[in-house]
Amino acid sequence: MERLKQAIRTKGNVLSNEVLKVDTFLNHQVDVELMGAVGEEFARLFKDSEITKILTIESSGIAPSFMASARLAAPLIFARKKKSLTMNDNVFVSKVYSFTKRETNDITVSKDFLTSEDRVLIIDDFLANGQAALGLIDIVEQAGATVAGLGIVIEKSFQDGRKLIEEKGYRIESLARIHSLENGHVTFVDELVTTNNN
Amino acid sequence: MERLKQAIRTKGNVLSNEVLKVDTFLNHQVDVELMGAVGEEFARLFKDSEITKILTIESSGIAPSFMASARLAAPLIFARKKKSLTMNDNVFVSKVYSFTKRETNDITVSKDFLTSEDRVLIIDDFLANGQAALGLIDIVEQAGATVAGLGIVIEKSFQDGRKLIEEKGYRIESLARIHSLENGHVTFVDELVTTNNN
Repeated sequence: MERLKQAIRTKGNVLSNEVLKVDTFLNHQVDVELMGAVGEEFARLFKDSEITKILTIESSGIAPSFMASARLAAPLIFARKKKSLTMNDNVFVSKVYSFTKRETNDITVSKDFLTSEDRVLIIDDFLANGQAALGLIDIVEQAGATVAGLGIVIEKSFQDGRKLIEEKGYRIESLARIHSLENGHVTFVDELVTTNNN
Repeated sequence: MERLKQAIRTKGNVLSNEVLKVDTFLNHQVDVELMGAVGEEFARLFKDSEITKILTIESSGIAPSFMASARLAAPLIFARKKKSLTMNDNVFVSKVYSFTKRETNDITVSKDFLTSEDRVLIIDDFLANGQAALGLIDIVEQAGATVAGLGIVIEKSFQDGRKLIEEKGYRIESLARIHSLENGHVTFVDELVTTNNN
């Protein structure tokens, strides 16, 4: 998605070879027009997948999911992140390890909102090591529902996430795929040939 | 807002005289069409207020702010909640006490996104004791920016929040004002006469 890539180029901040900060338009301040277009693009890509629910994770997944949920007429569920869980029988729980924060969080979804009839589109802001996505997939599977696919705003293609999810046989649509953040420069996967010729 | 009140009546769950659970359409599962209409209503109410930024708080404030941000063409910022803050000079911080959770959280907003030029519309899902709203107001004031007003989805009018904010001289627009949750029944402020006649 060219407009998203342009925002990453001009407003993203490469903090290291692994870390891209996008809090000017996605993670803290939100460019709602751009995130609306992102959501519309997810809806277009999955329009034939008979989606009944959209599942994301708080907080940064909510804005890019909003218009997808509106266009696909499928309710949006955001999983909750908690450091420690109080006992509650009515939730699906999955453990998600964050490499960045070096901590494990429980993510939870109420059993009221996912059933075995559901076809679920999972949306998240980033795909890196895939731990959050795998946690969301785990929750959909616990519900006996179908993972119809994953929509990712920004994929760090130099990390393992896509491989781990493709091994499970699921479709992933990433709107911006980053090949490298080396030398403070963002290189996208689909620019590789051009970049190598420079 | 009649449609919102109807959702509260039919899909809300009164857990006690103080607690209304709305996780079927606002706090966990999101009715994006309804929250879109909520955002449009905030935009209509504040269309002449020259809003330059919308400030909310993760996670439940994001969905009701989305269309307000789009219609007012003002970027959306969501404050981050953290249990303990790592030192960071580049954020505004305010302490917010939660009566429900009986804990104090720091809420933070990057100094990059609010300036003294800004006219800020604060949006939140609930107004009860007003602690979250006062924390957001505090952050806007720290930035030297102007609080143009507050847009609240659901106000528990039997608690102190509105009074505390009106004492500071700010405009509040609440789309549903709840007079009472007594006996498991939701009574709205604008239904009082009718209800008393029943």
